[in-house]
Amino acid sequence: MASDPVSPQQPDPAAGIDPAAAPAVRRLALIGLGLIGSSVARAVKRWNLAAEVVGHARSAATRETALALGFVDRAEADPAAAAAGADMVMICTPLGTYAALAEAIAPGLKPGAIVTDAGSTKTSAIRDLAPRLPEGVHLVPGHPIAGTEHSGPEAGFAELFAGRFCILTPPPGTDPAALETVRALWQGMGMTVHEMTAEHHDRVLAITSHLPHLIAYCIVGTATDLEAQTREEVIKYSAGGFRDFTRIAASDPVMWRDVFLNNKDAVLEIIQRFTEDLTALQRAIRWDEGETLERHFTRTRAVRRSVIAEKQA
Amino acid sequence: MASDPVSPQQPDPAAGIDPAAAPAVRRLALIGLGLIGSSVARAVKRWNLAAEVVGHARSAATRETALALGFVDRAEADPAAAAAGADMVMICTPLGTYAALAEAIAPGLKPGAIVTDAGSTKTSAIRDLAPRLPEGVHLVPGHPIAGTEHSGPEAGFAELFAGRFCILTPPPGTDPAALETVRALWQGMGMTVHEMTAEHHDRVLAITSHLPHLIAYCIVGTATDLEAQTREEVIKYSAGGFRDFTRIAASDPVMWRDVFLNNKDAVLEIIQRFTEDLTALQRAIRWDEGETLERHFTRTRAVRRSVIAEKQA
Repeated sequence: MASDPVSPQQPDPAAGIDPAAAPAVRRLALIGLGLIGSSVARAVKRWNLAAEVVGHARSAATRETALALGFVDRAEADPAAAAAGADMVMICTPLGTYAALAEAIAPGLKPGAIVTDAGSTKTSAIRDLAPRLPEGVHLVPGHPIAGTEHSGPEAGFAELFAGRFCILTPPPGTDPAALETVRALWQGMGMTVHEMTAEHHDRVLAITSHLPHLIAYCIVGTATDLEAQTREEVIKYSAGGFRDFTRIAASDPVMWRDVFLNNKDAVLEIIQRFTEDLTALQRAIRWDEGETLERHFTRTRAVRRSVIAEKQA
Repeated sequence: MASDPVSPQQPDPAAGIDPAAAPAVRRLALIGLGLIGSSVARAVKRWNLAAEVVGHARSAATRETALALGFVDRAEADPAAAAAGADMVMICTPLGTYAALAEAIAPGLKPGAIVTDAGSTKTSAIRDLAPRLPEGVHLVPGHPIAGTEHSGPEAGFAELFAGRFCILTPPPGTDPAALETVRALWQGMGMTVHEMTAEHHDRVLAITSHLPHLIAYCIVGTATDLEAQTREEVIKYSAGGFRDFTRIAASDPVMWRDVFLNNKDAVLEIIQRFTEDLTALQRAIRWDEGETLERHFTRTRAVRRSVIAEKQA
């Protein structure tokens, strides 16, 4: 209800590519044209970050939409056809598709091509992609921390990434020029780019993103199981907090299934901590420990102030 | 990030009081001038729902703010002085204050006065208020399902309630005219008013509001306990879902402490169900049960559509 105090900012040209310069990427192939892929395509077109954008989508309807909306120059049903000859290939499909996609596109990749992705878990991305790519192709895994609960090619928009963070997790020995090209692409879309190891990324995102989604899916499921009359009322009176969870729990089911399966250890570890903390609060409620509750609730308020200070609210 | 598709609507005059008519309430006393009390005051002024608004706040700073912003005609340090002679007294303070407030205001209440409230749990409101009010004073407990994570007299705004639901939980035998007056007041602020028993209200709100807040407080607490470096990163990368929880977990600590202490049974019951469901999801992740996860995540998507259909998104 409270309006978001930080609206997505337009990319800062100083932070990105000189708009007058030629695009840093000649041909960009986007594998997957859902929320993320189609937003990248729109941003790349808007800020002239690649000379040509080729897209792959399995569904004919998505390919038609992409061509009709004009955010790709060409749409291919075969991922290998989209990736062949591209200077950069960005995988924007659920994590469970990575291994098969890498097998499919590998033979047609041009020497010196960059393969990157936008997936939410990074150790699994490296595990599934690295061993399948040919010598001379550069892997630079990435994760733009941005999204909405909407899915599909119509849901994308060019400003999705502006003012947000992108994490790159280059494996040791990554080609510096390839890393720089991927970094410049996200910066050109208005993102602040950070680097860290894939393992560290997966631990941090387990708490900032994976656990919140699991919890939201869980609580909405709990409500769905209530007797029918109560369930209707839960929806009617959702403005008391529940509706924010329904928004998160409306995110793409296949994408999130794959996130949990591919970041299992970090997610299970953080669920364990969360459950312990919930049990402590539950116990405080049962034993009327008002001070414990108030102390806990006061402490968490400060975190909100930090989020606002970091302009991520 | 996605903008709220339903902006608060202006109250529909057909649903409320005829704006040309005299206000239905002559003198309204608001006990507590935080987010809710000050929003009620502003709405009452804006739509001329009471001839006079008197406010009570313990803090001198709040009273000064209320007078400076002009949403009360008079501000009293003593709740009894604010309530004395009022036609309607609305309690807008944390639930833990109700019993003492009722003791304090009871002697000065005028015969036929209506006492109502805006608290989040209703069996406790009746338990703490009813036995302390004199004969001839009408108790009509209420709960406007609206709020933000902000607190205090500056945080209020007249449109807070517009387009939302208000639940009234009149005990058996409540005076119909008093009930109608309270109903008309909330309708005049743009709310749709429903009636149910206090017990039913508390069960429904345990899932739509109390559990979501507890979970949000919990997950933000879990993140706060991480080692310092990770904690900084959790804030930086909060756009992945976590930031929505930090917003909810920034809600007023004392108000929420009192909610949990005063709706203990319903909250403990729903935590139990939630924990069982979370354990099932945790197990599905551990055992790579992708189908179970996908089925669960698909089911919850439908709930979001219902929330949007009910215009509560």
